[in-house]
Amino acid sequence: MLAITIPTHTCVWNSAIPSVFDSAFDLSWIKNHLTDSMFQGTRDYNPKQMAIREKVFNTIVSCFKRHGAETIDTPVFELKETLTGKYGEDSKLIYDLKDQGGELLSLRYDLTVPFARYLAMNKITNIKRYHIAKVYRRDNPAMTRGRYREFYQCDFDIAGQYDAMIPDAECLKIVHEILSELDLGDFRIKVNDRRILDGMFAVCGVPDNMFRTICSTVDKLDKLPWEAVKNEMVNEKGLSEEAADQIGVYVGGMDLAERLLQDQKMCQSTQACAGLTDIKLLFSYLQLFQVTDKVVFDLSLARGLDYYTGIIYEAILTQAGVAPVAPETSNEAPTEECVTVGSVAGGGRYDGLVGMFDPKGRKVPCVGVSIGIERIFSIMEQKAEASTEKIRTTEVQVMVAAAQKNLLEERLRLITELWNAGIKAELMYKKSPKLLSQLQHCEESGIPLVAILGEQELKNGVVKLRNVATRDEVDISRADLIAEIKKRTSA
Amino acid sequence: MLAITIPTHTCVWNSAIPSVFDSAFDLSWIKNHLTDSMFQGTRDYNPKQMAIREKVFNTIVSCFKRHGAETIDTPVFELKETLTGKYGEDSKLIYDLKDQGGELLSLRYDLTVPFARYLAMNKITNIKRYHIAKVYRRDNPAMTRGRYREFYQCDFDIAGQYDAMIPDAECLKIVHEILSELDLGDFRIKVNDRRILDGMFAVCGVPDNMFRTICSTVDKLDKLPWEAVKNEMVNEKGLSEEAADQIGVYVGGMDLAERLLQDQKMCQSTQACAGLTDIKLLFSYLQLFQVTDKVVFDLSLARGLDYYTGIIYEAILTQAGVAPVAPETSNEAPTEECVTVGSVAGGGRYDGLVGMFDPKGRKVPCVGVSIGIERIFSIMEQKAEASTEKIRTTEVQVMVAAAQKNLLEERLRLITELWNAGIKAELMYKKSPKLLSQLQHCEESGIPLVAILGEQELKNGVVKLRNVATRDEVDISRADLIAEIKKRTSA
Repeated sequence: MLAITIPTHTCVWNSAIPSVFDSAFDLSWIKNHLTDSMFQGTRDYNPKQMAIREKVFNTIVSCFKRHGAETIDTPVFELKETLTGKYGEDSKLIYDLKDQGGELLSLRYDLTVPFARYLAMNKITNIKRYHIAKVYRRDNPAMTRGRYREFYQCDFDIAGQYDAMIPDAECLKIVHEILSELDLGDFRIKVNDRRILDGMFAVCGVPDNMFRTICSTVDKLDKLPWEAVKNEMVNEKGLSEEAADQIGVYVGGMDLAERLLQDQKMCQSTQACAGLTDIKLLFSYLQLFQVTDKVVFDLSLARGLDYYTGIIYEAILTQAGVAPVAPETSNEAPTEECVTVGSVAGGGRYDGLVGMFDPKGRKVPCVGVSIGIERIFSIMEQKAEASTEKIRTTEVQVMVAAAQKNLLEERLRLITELWNAGIKAELMYKKSPKLLSQLQHCEESGIPLVAILGEQELKNGVVKLRNVATRDEVDISRADLIAEIKKRTSA
Repeated sequence: MLAITIPTHTCVWNSAIPSVFDSAFDLSWIKNHLTDSMFQGTRDYNPKQMAIREKVFNTIVSCFKRHGAETIDTPVFELKETLTGKYGEDSKLIYDLKDQGGELLSLRYDLTVPFARYLAMNKITNIKRYHIAKVYRRDNPAMTRGRYREFYQCDFDIAGQYDAMIPDAECLKIVHEILSELDLGDFRIKVNDRRILDGMFAVCGVPDNMFRTICSTVDKLDKLPWEAVKNEMVNEKGLSEEAADQIGVYVGGMDLAERLLQDQKMCQSTQACAGLTDIKLLFSYLQLFQVTDKVVFDLSLARGLDYYTGIIYEAILTQAGVAPVAPETSNEAPTEECVTVGSVAGGGRYDGLVGMFDPKGRKVPCVGVSIGIERIFSIMEQKAEASTEKIRTTEVQVMVAAAQKNLLEERLRLITELWNAGIKAELMYKKSPKLLSQLQHCEESGIPLVAILGEQELKNGVVKLRNVATRDEVDISRADLIAEIKKRTSA
């Protein structure tokens, strides 16, 4: 039932050596940022990007709603103390506001900690909610990676005391649905459990107080070779070389990972045993949800954040989509990792976080997932650019145009009728625009219909309705115009 | 054609004496903020508030799209220098980020300055765009006024060199449409022109370099009595008493305002003349747009911001909606001002702002409007609380329930079918939930249908479909279930 991945340390995505795919990111990133009137690592979204963003958000929100989620919103800044001690080594990336007399504030780093604060503050013990909003990280914007200091997160979380692994499995089902619907190419969802990792650390001889810091080093295995990871554990973090090697044995290969399930030493760790039992249960639910084709148990998955307590997961795209990369290989061989475009979703269980905000420490178990929407935007943008289909940035159905000069009043009167009937319409803000330029505007912005007014039409009580694509024109009586436009533009 | 308001200084909304309506705001505000795990002046939105917010945003966005607008997004922070010198006296309310090594950043104060920066940076000379996002002001959150330090703005702007007053009139048409559709009760849109104000200041003897600061004092006339406004002009800002009295004569009453249109002295000011001519043209377009019923020319309207250069406007609700206030009077008498709930939209023309960001100072004329969405939310929330209709916070169509124990696997299998068919469904995250508690959850959260599985149903290949409201139950074959649910839940 459990598919086991082979963590590959021979072929890695090293940020020092940009891949072809990185370069693709690179170009658009630089293009967006070669300016000095804007802060590096942030970006504007132009109307075309917004149209894509709206489409992606609609898909994601539909999925969250299909699974019965409510939504909440929280402020962009939190009290500094709310964020303190929640993110481990990444805390240095938190943006603080200037002390302008008052409380110390920081920009939110993710949506999970504000969610936990919200639950504790309002004494909510169960909720299924989504939250789409921007978060902030004082990252060094690596020009080679397309990373932003301001970026969207799309989070779905289930809080409440429930039977094991049912909500956890639903989170994975949601990732599967979203990535399938967005049609981003093949993907994998790696699953692990913090308790298995902790149990492994314990049996490898890692001191208790070093679990989290070693965890965040292990998490780099998808980007760095084993030697670099080991070096950080031993020389930067002071772990004994023996313990590091032991960890290397566990995360290093398939046969060992499989053996782990029966490993006598591992099973001495109650934690690891509980984790392994839950992973089995999880996979049985995932089978009922019909998503096991994409989910793999991967012992090298660690995730950087401090607050996870159980199941953790991360989804990666296994083909680079529209980017010009080496041909994909269909097996699970090491080369596959080379064309990975990185994580597009991640999450896990965090049963202790809400309790940190409750005066009495009352716990509310939580599990959730965050969709890595920025990478998805980038891929969709590349796809759109590669496609011949034009992206419309407005939804205008009809242009109110004049065939002769001095018909502004008549145009204003007609467009008022259309707007009041709920039709999406626009006109050129000139007293006497040329017919040609009005028609050109329709071609350029994809407006399907033009309602043309001329002296003859006004005399006859009609409007000339023109189909922009076919150039067919037909006179419609003023009384029938609205119905005709609605008929022609109903999808 | 021009309706003229009577500025009333006898009956004012003085923040020192909270009105009944203020108290209504007051309570919910305090309730939301009596906590110390959150920063004063910010708030969370709970699922019920979010459902209302979504509805309001949908109405507004539909209107913007009906008028052919695209949308853009900009970062929450801008370079500090981008915001410097754009807001006059209000600049002290800008939030700065801590200098953590790098550029000096500030949180955006509105959406207009980032829009202007965006246009200049991308050399865009015409666009019609909307932008809905949060902005930040380091205001002293007045507990009596329901003001927030983080709040939404919904902006619609038209940039481009066009014939006079056509886009300006469309902005007012949009305000009229939105306030009508949201059904917030009666409203007025006050209109003035900065050039008329400046012309008036000139003929009253205000020194050129004091125009903007006197302007922001005049703007307080809707909240402070004339004596307080005069006092600020003379004693705080050093204006001569004669000039102040002259201003008082112009903004003080109807007959004077009307006379102004023929006033010889005023017409010596080219600026004022141009403003008055444009106001006339504007009203002729507004008549074609059928919105003159709500629009009034009000010489006492000044608006605080520095960047306006022409037409300015502000919409106010003239009845307090659901708040317990004194009965509304139907005429334009002074008492009407007493039940004003304040500005719900405002904007104007700012032809110089984009040029401030262009290295060569190239100007892009702009006109826009900002919807004061937070007040609208408050009113809609009060309306919702007063109404008997329950607000749903999810869109779940069907609950997958079990009539007996140990049917978790069967429920997971069924809900997978439903989700995969696009049906919004949920189940309880328990192995063996009680039927009663499953039905109760439906009643509480407004789920209309329950698909009940029991041993008998499984044996017969059917599902018992229950209508929660009527309690009718009927067996449906598994093959027909999805079609039946879709049929029953299509609006």
